[in-house]
Amino acid sequence: MPHTQQLDTCLDSDLTKAPNIESYLIQKHEQYSAVTEGKMADYIPELAKANPDWFGISLITTDGRIFEVGDCQQQFTIQSISKAFLYGLALETCGRDRVWARVGVEPSGEAFNSIVLDRATNRPFNPMVNAGAIATTDLIPGSGSTERLTRVLEMFERYTGRKMYIDVPVSLSERATGSRNRAIAYLMHNFGMIGDKIDETLDLYFQQCSILVTAHDLALMGATLANAGINPITRVRALQCEYVQDVLSIMHTCGMYNYAGEWAYRVGIPAKSGVGGGITAVVPHKLGVGVFSPALDERGNSVRGIHFCQDFSRDFGLHLYCAADDKNKLDDWLDRASKLPNTDFEGNC
Amino acid sequence: MPHTQQLDTCLDSDLTKAPNIESYLIQKHEQYSAVTEGKMADYIPELAKANPDWFGISLITTDGRIFEVGDCQQQFTIQSISKAFLYGLALETCGRDRVWARVGVEPSGEAFNSIVLDRATNRPFNPMVNAGAIATTDLIPGSGSTERLTRVLEMFERYTGRKMYIDVPVSLSERATGSRNRAIAYLMHNFGMIGDKIDETLDLYFQQCSILVTAHDLALMGATLANAGINPITRVRALQCEYVQDVLSIMHTCGMYNYAGEWAYRVGIPAKSGVGGGITAVVPHKLGVGVFSPALDERGNSVRGIHFCQDFSRDFGLHLYCAADDKNKLDDWLDRASKLPNTDFEGNC
Amino acid sequence: MPHTQQLDTCLDSDLTKAPNIESYLIQKHEQYSAVTEGKMADYIPELAKANPDWFGISLITTDGRIFEVGDCQQQFTIQSISKAFLYGLALETCGRDRVWARVGVEPSGEAFNSIVLDRATNRPFNPMVNAGAIATTDLIPGSGSTERLTRVLEMFERYTGRKMYIDVPVSLSERATGSRNRAIAYLMHNFGMIGDKIDETLDLYFQQCSILVTAHDLALMGATLANAGINPITRVRALQCEYVQDVLSIMHTCGMYNYAGEWAYRVGIPAKSGVGGGITAVVPHKLGVGVFSPALDERGNSVRGIHFCQDFSRDFGLHLYCAADDKNKLDDWLDRASKLPNTDFEGNC
Amino acid sequence: MPHTQQLDTCLDSDLTKAPNIESYLIQKHEQYSAVTEGKMADYIPELAKANPDWFGISLITTDGRIFEVGDCQQQFTIQSISKAFLYGLALETCGRDRVWARVGVEPSGEAFNSIVLDRATNRPFNPMVNAGAIATTDLIPGSGSTERLTRVLEMFERYTGRKMYIDVPVSLSERATGSRNRAIAYLMHNFGMIGDKIDETLDLYFQQCSILVTAHDLALMGATLANAGINPITRVRALQCEYVQDVLSIMHTCGMYNYAGEWAYRVGIPAKSGVGGGITAVVPHKLGVGVFSPALDERGNSVRGIHFCQDFSRDFGLHLYCAADDKNKLDDWLDRASKLPNTDFEGNC
Repeated sequence: MPHTQQLDTCLDSDLTKAPNIESYLIQKHEQYSAVTEGKMADYIPELAKANPDWFGISLITTDGRIFEVGDCQQQFTIQSISKAFLYGLALETCGRDRVWARVGVEPSGEAFNSIVLDRATNRPFNPMVNAGAIATTDLIPGSGSTERLTRVLEMFERYTGRKMYIDVPVSLSERATGSRNRAIAYLMHNFGMIGDKIDETLDLYFQQCSILVTAHDLALMGATLANAGINPITRVRALQCEYVQDVLSIMHTCGMYNYAGEWAYRVGIPAKSGVGGGITAVVPHKLGVGVFSPALDERGNSVRGIHFCQDFSRDFGLHLYCAADDKNKLDDWLDRASKLPNTDFEGNC
Repeated sequence: MPHTQQLDTCLDSDLTKAPNIESYLIQKHEQYSAVTEGKMADYIPELAKANPDWFGISLITTDGRIFEVGDCQQQFTIQSISKAFLYGLALETCGRDRVWARVGVEPSGEAFNSIVLDRATNRPFNPMVNAGAIATTDLIPGSGSTERLTRVLEMFERYTGRKMYIDVPVSLSERATGSRNRAIAYLMHNFGMIGDKIDETLDLYFQQCSILVTAHDLALMGATLANAGINPITRVRALQCEYVQDVLSIMHTCGMYNYAGEWAYRVGIPAKSGVGGGITAVVPHKLGVGVFSPALDERGNSVRGIHFCQDFSRDFGLHLYCAADDKNKLDDWLDRASKLPNTDFEGNC
Repeated sequence: MPHTQQLDTCLDSDLTKAPNIESYLIQKHEQYSAVTEGKMADYIPELAKANPDWFGISLITTDGRIFEVGDCQQQFTIQSISKAFLYGLALETCGRDRVWARVGVEPSGEAFNSIVLDRATNRPFNPMVNAGAIATTDLIPGSGSTERLTRVLEMFERYTGRKMYIDVPVSLSERATGSRNRAIAYLMHNFGMIGDKIDETLDLYFQQCSILVTAHDLALMGATLANAGINPITRVRALQCEYVQDVLSIMHTCGMYNYAGEWAYRVGIPAKSGVGGGITAVVPHKLGVGVFSPALDERGNSVRGIHFCQDFSRDFGLHLYCAADDKNKLDDWLDRASKLPNTDFEGNC
Repeated sequence: MPHTQQLDTCLDSDLTKAPNIESYLIQKHEQYSAVTEGKMADYIPELAKANPDWFGISLITTDGRIFEVGDCQQQFTIQSISKAFLYGLALETCGRDRVWARVGVEPSGEAFNSIVLDRATNRPFNPMVNAGAIATTDLIPGSGSTERLTRVLEMFERYTGRKMYIDVPVSLSERATGSRNRAIAYLMHNFGMIGDKIDETLDLYFQQCSILVTAHDLALMGATLANAGINPITRVRALQCEYVQDVLSIMHTCGMYNYAGEWAYRVGIPAKSGVGGGITAVVPHKLGVGVFSPALDERGNSVRGIHFCQDFSRDFGLHLYCAADDKNKLDDWLDRASKLPNTDFEGNC
């Protein structure tokens, strides 16, 4: 069922209360700090320990401006958000044909941790379910686990412009409780969807789930995708231009667990969430959104994160199919915001 | 599996061969007329009788210009394409809450004629599968079958700007062979998803599948959606502005049968196809596409229609997530095309 | 999960408390009258009105002796129990080949009212699920509904030795709320598993579910099957000898809803239950059991009926695979019981 | 679909052609040696190497008489047949409650190697599917792999009266290609259905699948079950009497892969087959049947084995629900056969 609150389309946007983007964020942060629904993931003890009060919102534009409120430097594990970026890395290193032979692009209707493969092809349905992400991980090349992990970390470092670290206790906990993912891996190996290095691939999978990020990082990662693959602050290319389209397409249809269809319908921008409480969303050519708040709804999405993204999309007419052609509304607001001296750059192919 | 041909992203666009939009269409029409794969739907004899040579491509812009080649006035039955428009009508007449209580917005991974409902809610997964379209049909109000059918026909007439007719033999054949749809209807009635007028609703469902359209009509229907719901030629509103977003969102994720995920990934614009051989596609704020050619691939989509749409999206950078920000490419081309005197209108909310 | 009470196999049998069969029945009736768990079926109001105190146990031997306690003359609707007998009638009138082409013989693991057909053959899995029983009903020949219904009633009259009647309000209620069964019928018609007379067949299906029986009737029906198809009291043949094997085989594997596998494992005799609260069970060559008590467990089986049958099977070593070869235990007890003058008959082929 | 040959029930039995049990076996062996349909299992190369001409039939009675024809001393791997006996061992060593908490008793309708667990309980459906047999294997106690394997081998030695060996190359091949079973094991571990010693348990599982048996062994194993758990030749107890009922019940409903329902319906005696080409069947209190011929039908059952068992059941009226009460037919024939001096023993509880 759709959430109970009324859908306000972009036509119902009312921005009269906030004079500028900074005050808009402060207002929303205050509004949704009051929401205390949801609960932390608890399938491993490390996640359950998160502070439910944490709440950070970060926007970073494709010309490098940063608007933030709340706990934007609080670290947490990236969890499923990494799936989208790993998919990009697999495309870049293996090419579309090899990746597509191992993982599909169809929304499945199945749970993210489902062990069901596409009956016709034996492929996982898409790279956003665990099966698909394990298949993607398996494709990351390298001689040995260190080289492969390094490749993954370096990829994330291009997106975030900083050194990335793994929360090792989380990674080990994921590994210790990962029988379901191990089952998925062996089933895919049975069908030739992944190779022989099952333990190594699973370790890498658990490690990349456990990379530490902040809301700021997530916004910058989103902004990089919005910016044709170039990090708008460091101006380093994080993803080859031609694959940006692939990553955003999959985020659009499959990024938000079992809420994906409704998200595409209501919010209408590519996004990916993780059970660590993060959401990254992308407004192409404009900006990236990073939200973090660890209390999750029953589908595994950050409660406050969903609230903010819905409002933000509606208020600024960001839904891809918003019939009101005032996407310039966002441009106007951003124009009003103070510009840093060096923020006149925009990525291209 | 993805089609065997290599994916060319919008970055691979090469338009040097065609000097203008008219010659581009002629060239594509010629190129794909040579493709004779696929076969006509044959679950009712009427559809099997279609001429496999028929092939029409129509583009209609939101400022009312028309670019056409081939059999654009050949009539055929709309079939599943109507599902998208009927969904709009249901939203308009019943409001979102009532519609959502009866039909979901999630891609399902199930076949279009699947009898499987959402286990959690007993709703059909989305309005583009038969179950969802029957639920949508059931919501169309009216005292008796004539009034309900009239309401549907009048809706299509607003989109096409002309009087619409039903292919009665097709409608009766659909009805006579419609046991599966009847099963779906009774199962939904069992769960309270549709009301008591099952025979009347099914008759209306079979009738609206059998409405006669042309490639020109489909282009104009698409252009109307692209134009915020206002028919760009008659300037009559066909759909309330606020629901355009809903219809396009569903077309994006669920419009192309079991090819929907791959279509969203590769072509990246909202579209809907029918087993009569038609496809309607929408480039928001720009134009509508209507293609007709009755030979279908194994998923039920027009073979030539898919080919044209893939090329058209790639060549003009229409994919929603095309990282190359040259959507103006289409504008340039359209600007170069001759304008009619009265085509300076564009719909809005 | 198996019921929580410990499985006592036939080896744990302890009959020291009851000097004879009559006192055994009285003792069990008293023991389980105290059990007030379970609740009446309530999908139609008529069933919900049953008195939860009703409890009758009837045993009828293949030589025509009757042992009864409690409400053995209380009428109730036969419900699913009729499925087993209808299957016999279909075999008799159409032959195995025609019947098998329309309905399988495999336990399904699906719910009794599942709309899922065997993917490989499009047949219902077995004649004990609703789909299978509707397919069986469809095979009952006759020109018009009266003739077909008469054929069914006459069949039951051969089993019970008395005139049979339908509870018409129940039948009409089943019909009015039967959308799920109607869905199943249309889906099977779609696959050619049933013919065109869908309304007539469904009416007959609802009618035969609503036939009024007593615990005495059920015992006699079971005794007739135990007696190679000949009613041990009237000595009228109710089912051709060659099909008795078919009916008992299906009752063994599929007769007790989702408890069927566990029943075969724990109780180990062919049986069929109905949501009216009846159970009929068969000890081949020995006797038939009829139990009636309307409070049902969560699988739709009479709570007290299950209790009695489990005890009776254990205490007298009736499980087909009871390793203790003392099936004569039952013979001994029956021998001890007073014989009527005319009860020296036993059916054969 | 049932096999195309007509079902002859036990009523159609015609034994006039064979004067005694020995000549009956010779006649059937000759008749079905001519059948060359089916093909060897080939998922590992070792099985594909079997000689399709091999064909042995062995009957061993509960009083220890042996009737054999053909290749009854040819060794082959037991494969799934072991599942039935392992289940007995688990019951004996852990008791019913612990076993039932880990594996159900319901026929599933799923393939033998399905990864689907019972949605309500997360248990495998029954001990005859791979998931169930892995769960059963996991329950076999012992400190370390040697002790556990020894326990299994000693169990089989009680049934066969001889030293048992493993075909190690088969075992290693099974292990090397066993990703699907490994997936099943990890999924069950995820649900707490099996413990932590996953590799050890899987090794034991692959080893016990690879135990070498003969048709003679299978007959003796069946005869032991027929004889209340006591080997009729060695007079050693192989299975506690109380669990014989459990093993036979499961063989009745789940023993013959996806042919199980049809087997219960048509042949009507407990049996278990393996992809090595063996079938063991049990006529309680009478005899055990062992058949071996490696060419399999599409469900994985020995083609000639199925043919022989169907005929044998029909000709001697062995179907549990054969309405013709001439099970003495078998006794008569066996009585006619020459008795060895020492064969007057019969097992009991």
